[in-house]
Amino acid sequence: MVGRMRFRLPLAVLLIAASPPPTATVAEIEAAAPTDAWRAVEPGNLLLIDTAKGTVAIELAADFAPAHVAAIRALVRSGAFTAGAVTRVQDNYVVQWGTRAAVAALAGPPGPATAGPELPPEYERPAAGMVFIALPFADAYAAEVGFSAGWPVARDANDAGGSAWLVHCYGMVGVGRDNPPSTGDGSELYGVIGHAPRHLDRNMALVGRVLDGLPSFAALPRGTAALGFYTTAAEQVPITGAHLAVDVPDAPRWQVLRTDSPTFARLIAARANRREPFFVRPAGGVDVCNVKVPVRRVP
Amino acid sequence: MVGRMRFRLPLAVLLIAASPPPTATVAEIEAAAPTDAWRAVEPGNLLLIDTAKGTVAIELAADFAPAHVAAIRALVRSGAFTAGAVTRVQDNYVVQWGTRAAVAALAGPPGPATAGPELPPEYERPAAGMVFIALPFADAYAAEVGFSAGWPVARDANDAGGSAWLVHCYGMVGVGRDNPPSTGDGSELYGVIGHAPRHLDRNMALVGRVLDGLPSFAALPRGTAALGFYTTAAEQVPITGAHLAVDVPDAPRWQVLRTDSPTFARLIAARANRREPFFVRPAGGVDVCNVKVPVRRVP
Repeated sequence: MVGRMRFRLPLAVLLIAASPPPTATVAEIEAAAPTDAWRAVEPGNLLLIDTAKGTVAIELAADFAPAHVAAIRALVRSGAFTAGAVTRVQDNYVVQWGTRAAVAALAGPPGPATAGPELPPEYERPAAGMVFIALPFADAYAAEVGFSAGWPVARDANDAGGSAWLVHCYGMVGVGRDNPPSTGDGSELYGVIGHAPRHLDRNMALVGRVLDGLPSFAALPRGTAALGFYTTAAEQVPITGAHLAVDVPDAPRWQVLRTDSPTFARLIAARANRREPFFVRPAGGVDVCNVKVPVRRVP
Repeated sequence: MVGRMRFRLPLAVLLIAASPPPTATVAEIEAAAPTDAWRAVEPGNLLLIDTAKGTVAIELAADFAPAHVAAIRALVRSGAFTAGAVTRVQDNYVVQWGTRAAVAALAGPPGPATAGPELPPEYERPAAGMVFIALPFADAYAAEVGFSAGWPVARDANDAGGSAWLVHCYGMVGVGRDNPPSTGDGSELYGVIGHAPRHLDRNMALVGRVLDGLPSFAALPRGTAALGFYTTAAEQVPITGAHLAVDVPDAPRWQVLRTDSPTFARLIAARANRREPFFVRPAGGVDVCNVKVPVRRVP
């Protein structure tokens, strides 16, 4: 018998048992993934944000929101995020941070946007030609949900003319914007820290997801002003620097499990039907946001 | 034009505009709810947990897990939670707290359970006879999802012999347990602070939900040991007291919006198709965990 107090909930994710594949756990499947089941995160898509609470590593989704990602890269390289800050933490929703200019504007009177030109509304893209691994389970928001190139994706019913879009799962990163027709300029970014706010899908430009460091953001005190904004500058968490890994010598490197790999197919099956000893009734299905795509830091 | 930096995401939830019903927002619908659309939380079902980080108010779901709720009430009234603590915070998953005895056991060697008798596995109940408001949207985990008596509920396909069960939405509270056949004894409780871990549905006894104070738990530092347990007693958040409102003079009172009210039907529709000016594309559906059942404190 295991220690009663030490082990709770998904106990068996810690176990490395010699189970045959049909009953392998997520941890076992991931540990057994061959080298070619992993893809490297391109250094040009790896955004590192240094804060007083630690570094957050984000992979940018350049294939889904190229103009927004280009705008973010330009802001990062201009140093615009240095001396920016986390300005908002809304419970069960988002953490938001901005450039120095965005933070300064918060302290000023409400007014029109001061930032750069409008970007195209990169809220969806054509589904045609995408490698799409569909989940065989129902979804409340989209005809199909699944994965493409490591990203959680939804799409229209499968026909040649449909769209596909990134899904607002926990840890996904998007671009704050004003009311339409604003599309945001990349000077304010948010990360999801609650139950997936799927109603934002196709309404905002998602530009990536947090690979590492999210807990340090998710555990920040919630702001007490409307929408979770901090009421004082003292509550804000300073950003001490932001860089693209491609611009930094000896930057950390990350890998993401290929979602078109046999390993990931096994992982989906294991997520949909937990076989760990803790469970008495496997679910028989899984939500797209509960199939977390594995990531790992490499030396 | 609104101030660019001050307003983000669901801007219009703050607006009290004179919109006609078909385009009313969630905030407008809730504000217009008649008195009889609200039900009082019974003081015998209102659990107040005082911690060094504030008070958390929980409504107990006595109709779904009567034996577990009775066990929790008895522990509370015996003072077992006083000098207990929050012992575990796992990012995107759960916060967990326990009685004084449970905390003491954490510091000791792993061993068999020391607590009370086994309880029945109250993981589901007969659906027959329940007032069930079904959502007309798909779900990855259950034939039907919806609401009953203010709770998020799933159930089998609608036939006389099916089961119904509480759903692990953000803020729901359950009873920690060991591997089966353990069913937990109420001395350790967890609250969901991440994307709904629906794979736990029908695997654990859900016993209520947090009505107030959840952000103070959700913002706690994540534990660094396995499963998010804190590694030292100094990290734990002490519980200074726990009470049932029925036992406390002048205890705070709460109301929950009736999920079988016309107001709630309108709220579901508004959640599924956001009409606030912020949105460019209403979703046309909503996940059961994104229809938050309104609560309010009453004088």
